[in-house]
Amino acid sequence: MNSFDAMWAAILDVGRDGTTGGYRRFAWNDADMTLREWFDGEAQRRSMTVEEDRNGNLWAWWMPAGWQGEPRDAFVTGSHLDSVPDGGAFDGPLGVVSAFAAVDILRAKDIVPTRPIAVTAFADEEGARFGVACVGSQLTTGSLTPERALRLRDVNGISLAEALTASGRRPDHLGADPALTDRVGVYVELHVEQGRGLDLVGKPIAVASSIWPHGRWLFRFTGEANHAGATRLVDRRDPMLAFASSVHTARGAAQLHDAVATFGKVQVLPNGANAIPSEITAWLDARAADEQTLTALVAEISAQALKYAEGDGIGLDIDAESVTPIVEFPADTRARLQAALGHLGEIPVLPTAAGHDAGILSAKVPTAMLFVRNPTGVSHSPVEHAEVDDCHRGVEALADVMADWVA
Amino acid sequence: MNSFDAMWAAILDVGRDGTTGGYRRFAWNDADMTLREWFDGEAQRRSMTVEEDRNGNLWAWWMPAGWQGEPRDAFVTGSHLDSVPDGGAFDGPLGVVSAFAAVDILRAKDIVPTRPIAVTAFADEEGARFGVACVGSQLTTGSLTPERALRLRDVNGISLAEALTASGRRPDHLGADPALTDRVGVYVELHVEQGRGLDLVGKPIAVASSIWPHGRWLFRFTGEANHAGATRLVDRRDPMLAFASSVHTARGAAQLHDAVATFGKVQVLPNGANAIPSEITAWLDARAADEQTLTALVAEISAQALKYAEGDGIGLDIDAESVTPIVEFPADTRARLQAALGHLGEIPVLPTAAGHDAGILSAKVPTAMLFVRNPTGVSHSPVEHAEVDDCHRGVEALADVMADWVA
Repeated sequence: MNSFDAMWAAILDVGRDGTTGGYRRFAWNDADMTLREWFDGEAQRRSMTVEEDRNGNLWAWWMPAGWQGEPRDAFVTGSHLDSVPDGGAFDGPLGVVSAFAAVDILRAKDIVPTRPIAVTAFADEEGARFGVACVGSQLTTGSLTPERALRLRDVNGISLAEALTASGRRPDHLGADPALTDRVGVYVELHVEQGRGLDLVGKPIAVASSIWPHGRWLFRFTGEANHAGATRLVDRRDPMLAFASSVHTARGAAQLHDAVATFGKVQVLPNGANAIPSEITAWLDARAADEQTLTALVAEISAQALKYAEGDGIGLDIDAESVTPIVEFPADTRARLQAALGHLGEIPVLPTAAGHDAGILSAKVPTAMLFVRNPTGVSHSPVEHAEVDDCHRGVEALADVMADWVA
Repeated sequence: MNSFDAMWAAILDVGRDGTTGGYRRFAWNDADMTLREWFDGEAQRRSMTVEEDRNGNLWAWWMPAGWQGEPRDAFVTGSHLDSVPDGGAFDGPLGVVSAFAAVDILRAKDIVPTRPIAVTAFADEEGARFGVACVGSQLTTGSLTPERALRLRDVNGISLAEALTASGRRPDHLGADPALTDRVGVYVELHVEQGRGLDLVGKPIAVASSIWPHGRWLFRFTGEANHAGATRLVDRRDPMLAFASSVHTARGAAQLHDAVATFGKVQVLPNGANAIPSEITAWLDARAADEQTLTALVAEISAQALKYAEGDGIGLDIDAESVTPIVEFPADTRARLQAALGHLGEIPVLPTAAGHDAGILSAKVPTAMLFVRNPTGVSHSPVEHAEVDDCHRGVEALADVMADWVA
């Protein structure tokens, strides 16, 4: 497992904040560019040819000796290298590093692939900078149009188009890429688990059954700015109260529906300590096991929030920013993974409430996911963790699946 | 009233945002510098000598003919020129413009002052940029030390010391200025009312009785960042819930105590739509008619907030950022203002829940305030308003008080 450990150590400090210990690897920032160079170096070290596709996703190809023409029916595995604000080390990079390490295992065992293998790193999976998740894979499959993507702006007002140009990329190259997805036989993404499913059953590796339907809804509460000292309570139209009530409603409704609902991002205007807010924008993240439940959950929260707003004499607009339907990973692909890992005993099959590039790509190609145990379940945080032994088990499992597919 | 109207028109667009219509006149920014030049021009036009004191406050002096030596026992009137974020046109500038216009009335009536008159504009009253209110007057009276002031930083990390240097000022000049306050016989601040007290009784002008004791408390709720999709509700330590409960507790406690309490400024970390927050910092602004009530109010809110935090397994630190005791304006000064305005009939006497430089200066010199009717009571907002006739009445009232004092 030396190749895994060395790669892991090489990127551990890239984009890590000295104070929080969390990562700030955002699309096209300095840390992201450093990780792209690292990817290039790891591919070159293995004589794999690196392509950056038209949407900024990285592909490192290991072609069978004597292969003629374009790759086809390829075994593709990888994940992403970017993070949420103050995210952890594992969400994303674990899948990319494990993919290179799995290649090394096949080569150490002298396994000769009969079909192409690619290691990938998809661009801007977390959407931390421009607000939309899975930008790279969504552009490739066509579920995000280049027109919409290029107009996205970060908090400093820099558009994705400007960020791409500044990084030496061509914004006019963005768009759906069916010729690329046609090369893919299967996409297998290894990922740290983002819950405690494996920890609770005491197992190191799982295969994914589905990705919960999920979405992001923007709640804009509009009141009236006023002096926090001199304005009588009865004269106020303070949007903070209805927002606060909605936070509790979201939690209660999620409990009721066995789902999750979170207000984690809030912007207050004018955000002065002595000013009653004029406007509060809050993002609701909601996820449920099926689409009907998700719809009911969000409808319930929205209806209650509108009642609170009406009661306080303030305005409320609710917009669905993005809604992703359920992804059921194909049963036959999943069964083949389970068979390849049969020597490990029974492999848990778990759903995930987190979105992934594998979910996006499932619209065009067969996809599957492997999860590595997360002992606390904490993710999107500097304390996100996986034991090194479990990481090694993940690499071995991925190598077993790869060997089964390409030998 | 031509001089009032022309001055008002001259500054109406300075620092006004084209979209919101609100003002962004912050300490030492471009708009503030433009208003300082405007102040200088108005003083020069009246042959008044402008001094900028060691703390950046502006003083325009009208000295009696033949006056020898330093000014003493002066009638000082003015207010401030800066605004809260997206504030209104009246809070501050009304007092400065009215002061110059009152000087014009005395001169038009050939009133010859027997003691010095000064028109003032105190620096950084709102504290919008560096987070502490009444910086100019607090430095002058010594209630804020230069060491603490110079370390204050704005959201871009620029310290007050750096902002002063960039504006051509000497940070090492800051500090208490007893020689300056020794010159002051009385300080009268005219201000737009920031509530509906005058509107409710149908009168245009009031004198102030007191400034409510008030303060700002910082609540830091610390939970654990985690994935908003993949983290089970029972595994969460989400600080948003205890914050939301505290918002409602503050409102309820304020109602109970006939006081006001507001959470108007909130910072969420990491503030990602798909991340459970790790930390929420929220500022409680609380004010009450007397200090005992204020203490009880904040103690009640704090105790409840700590219970919520404990219940959710999160941390909560509460720090008093600033607490200002009650200011009772001197009864004899107030009586003299009422006598000078006796020809207007009964003058309402109102407390205010808003802090003012007059409150800070009251520690060192006799102070008084005049309020001009605000028909909606709205302040710290682009729609803050006073009718032009009421503004003219305010100028006349201030001129009456000035003439009474100096003739």
